[in-house]
Amino acid sequence: MTTFPVDFSATCAATGELLPGTFAEATSDQIHSACQRAAVAAIELRSAEPQRLSEFLSAVATEVRARREAIVERCEQETGYVRARVEGEFERATGQLDLFARLAVERPWDRTAEDPADPDRKPFPKPRMTRRFVPLGPVAVFGACNFPLAISVIGNDFVAAIATGNPVIVKSHPSHPGTCELLGQAVKEAIRKTSMPDGTFELLHGRTPQTSLTLVQHPAISAVGFTGSPQGGRALAKAVLERDNPIPIFAELGSTNPVFLTREAIANRMTSIAEGFAASLRFGNGHMCTKPGVVVIHDDDAEAFINATKQILARQPDLPMLSGPIAEAFDRGVAKLRSAAEVKELFIADASSTDGPWHRGAHWFGMPVETAINDHWLHSETFGPLSILVRCPSEHDMIRVAEQFHGSLTSTIHCEDAKSAFCRRWRAVAERFSGRIVFNGWPTGMEIGAATQHGGPFPASLDASSTSVGHSSTERFVRPLCYQNWP
Amino acid sequence: MTTFPVDFSATCAATGELLPGTFAEATSDQIHSACQRAAVAAIELRSAEPQRLSEFLSAVATEVRARREAIVERCEQETGYVRARVEGEFERATGQLDLFARLAVERPWDRTAEDPADPDRKPFPKPRMTRRFVPLGPVAVFGACNFPLAISVIGNDFVAAIATGNPVIVKSHPSHPGTCELLGQAVKEAIRKTSMPDGTFELLHGRTPQTSLTLVQHPAISAVGFTGSPQGGRALAKAVLERDNPIPIFAELGSTNPVFLTREAIANRMTSIAEGFAASLRFGNGHMCTKPGVVVIHDDDAEAFINATKQILARQPDLPMLSGPIAEAFDRGVAKLRSAAEVKELFIADASSTDGPWHRGAHWFGMPVETAINDHWLHSETFGPLSILVRCPSEHDMIRVAEQFHGSLTSTIHCEDAKSAFCRRWRAVAERFSGRIVFNGWPTGMEIGAATQHGGPFPASLDASSTSVGHSSTERFVRPLCYQNWP
Repeated sequence: MTTFPVDFSATCAATGELLPGTFAEATSDQIHSACQRAAVAAIELRSAEPQRLSEFLSAVATEVRARREAIVERCEQETGYVRARVEGEFERATGQLDLFARLAVERPWDRTAEDPADPDRKPFPKPRMTRRFVPLGPVAVFGACNFPLAISVIGNDFVAAIATGNPVIVKSHPSHPGTCELLGQAVKEAIRKTSMPDGTFELLHGRTPQTSLTLVQHPAISAVGFTGSPQGGRALAKAVLERDNPIPIFAELGSTNPVFLTREAIANRMTSIAEGFAASLRFGNGHMCTKPGVVVIHDDDAEAFINATKQILARQPDLPMLSGPIAEAFDRGVAKLRSAAEVKELFIADASSTDGPWHRGAHWFGMPVETAINDHWLHSETFGPLSILVRCPSEHDMIRVAEQFHGSLTSTIHCEDAKSAFCRRWRAVAERFSGRIVFNGWPTGMEIGAATQHGGPFPASLDASSTSVGHSSTERFVRPLCYQNWP
Repeated sequence: MTTFPVDFSATCAATGELLPGTFAEATSDQIHSACQRAAVAAIELRSAEPQRLSEFLSAVATEVRARREAIVERCEQETGYVRARVEGEFERATGQLDLFARLAVERPWDRTAEDPADPDRKPFPKPRMTRRFVPLGPVAVFGACNFPLAISVIGNDFVAAIATGNPVIVKSHPSHPGTCELLGQAVKEAIRKTSMPDGTFELLHGRTPQTSLTLVQHPAISAVGFTGSPQGGRALAKAVLERDNPIPIFAELGSTNPVFLTREAIANRMTSIAEGFAASLRFGNGHMCTKPGVVVIHDDDAEAFINATKQILARQPDLPMLSGPIAEAFDRGVAKLRSAAEVKELFIADASSTDGPWHRGAHWFGMPVETAINDHWLHSETFGPLSILVRCPSEHDMIRVAEQFHGSLTSTIHCEDAKSAFCRRWRAVAERFSGRIVFNGWPTGMEIGAATQHGGPFPASLDASSTSVGHSSTERFVRPLCYQNWP
């Protein structure tokens, strides 16, 4: 079935106005063609020299840097992020390209193993077995609304898939198609300059679920990389499972990233904790998958911490949400909390001071531990600058809160002594559900390295054994292959 | 909802008669209780010393060996396997327990990584990041009908889960519940003797899909290991995806394990290839996930190879299928092939000579390449002693056949020169879909080691990046966890 293209435009997050440029919903013919070309490219890429893949990633970095001004400007408009935030992400994204250009040659995923032959073994001779790692084939990538550079067209899934020898088809995010288009042009220019196969990369635009489903159900697609909401990840996973041949899907979803404040930490450094929390909550205006969405505190410390934090939040400016639909979802989350029993408004940014339709400031709510547990607020992620403070009458209750979580990208403790009984007890519980455990820090601002783990049990991700960021993210797009007695 | 237990008995595969002993379908209360106890045990196991897990696995091996006669005898009755086949599997299963007792201490899955801190980094200091690997929690295990010892109660999933510190709940296979019960008693005695937590292991019986679904959807279950049919694997995967919190499922399913016979190999050693094929086809009476279900040959070699092979097949005895339902499914597969256009019967074992209702001998069918491709016979696995010979007019067509596969546990080539143009071309294609590539051998009779890969793209498995057998099978039941700035 060929669908007719439906043009759409991007909106300016700060003003709500339409931005220049139109983007056409990909037709099923365009999706099919991109997948077919990717399948052809996959055959060449799987035997490509590591150096060639590395040079291609470096060429992408060069082309992206050459378009820096245009990319940063468009990204600012489409996201409403402050310039420093966009520039920081530009550095992270291009640094990631450089890093994976190096990893393409170092091949940290290639855990070759060999079991030697034993021709004299009885009753049967033992064959030689050699294990290597091979690429999966064309990867469909769905970037995140909140990282238009580092988790997008040239982002984490792209660099991991290319470094391991897989073609990539990106479905652009409808809230920043212009940024995606500029990045896609850079990748295509790099393909031309390094003579990579034409099907190594394609960018498709689209806003409808049907476009995404058609892409992930195409027979040529061998794996999916997704960053987005738990509902979106589930829907894609269901579509993938219904294929004639189900394929791997790696989906990084969301979490509430609980932060636990011990009595000793509050006693010794309450002001710096309040400052750290307020900054982490508003980093990228709260549009972070690692935003501290739940903070757990002892009842006796709550009032002083609330007062100190409110003063800091009151000094922060309102900033645009990423898009109209995201602002509306945020408002629905706020309304739900405002109308709930036993939930108290601790701080609500003054809406009258905003200078755009989607500008929102910090929203902070407080509730007793029983409300948080019984009414399931601990698992309720409201995307944007909103957090919940859970008041506990005892340390025992703080541990009870920790025991409620099934999965989270991060969990954090502020504590003066990691060897204290409480801290050890907390850590044993946090290890059950966390992808990353942060000690006396904040979950936002992730490091990219060999030890990075960005994932965790659902809802953090669909596959807790994989990471979507860092060196080991490459492991997602290869699989082991054993050769028996190959000469 | 509490269901009332429904007793059932096992049948003797050789005679179709009921065997002694009744087994009760697990009630939802029993499932819930087992899961709750496993959740409690998981907390203790995750901090258990490696030596303790190792000693438990060794104790299981001791207890299983102490019951050798009873286990082997019951297994023979429930499967209809010849004694040598059962004894071979007993050695493999107990050897696997010994091996994983060693791996529990060696911890090959523990790929700890550290990114050092850099307090002087600008604009922000760099925290220290350490990655470790932690167990997932209680694992639900569904063994295979065809490996009642090595892929069952004490089998591959059990040893991998226990070595990595996870409790296990096994749902026994309804075609060999008595064997499962004896193995379960051995495990429980080992728990008693080594003072492991009570919830470390439980065995549940059942024949209904509802029992399996209730188990995998219980909130305390953190992962699933399954070996069985693609339909069964899909049904469990769907149930797992519909949980409030989806969990990992590792499912080894099936494949047709194509074997390609080059002209040179047939010219040089046709008789030994015919003997090898006939033996591999009938190993365990064809009840192997690595059975050579498709053999691809050049037209000009077909007649001589058919004649040589038929003589060997005619000397093989008929043997029991594993159960009545499996014999019926086999008969349906045979009937489908017999009534298909362009499909020729090459050899059909004489049914009149059988001495039991479920005895079946070799069934071998031939077809031209276009029929095999167009009518999708290449992907049609008939479980049991049945294989398809695909005749190709050219080497080009043999490659075309290889290009049809999406996934297979194994693929095999018989060839005189691995560097020949044909062999290299074949290998490039086989690498796209195979979990293991066999050179001048047969796919049955897998080795267990560090290089073992038993898996592959669907239908071989649901997760091609994992192996269900060998050292790396442990990686399925741990996940990475990153500590940021932990003292």
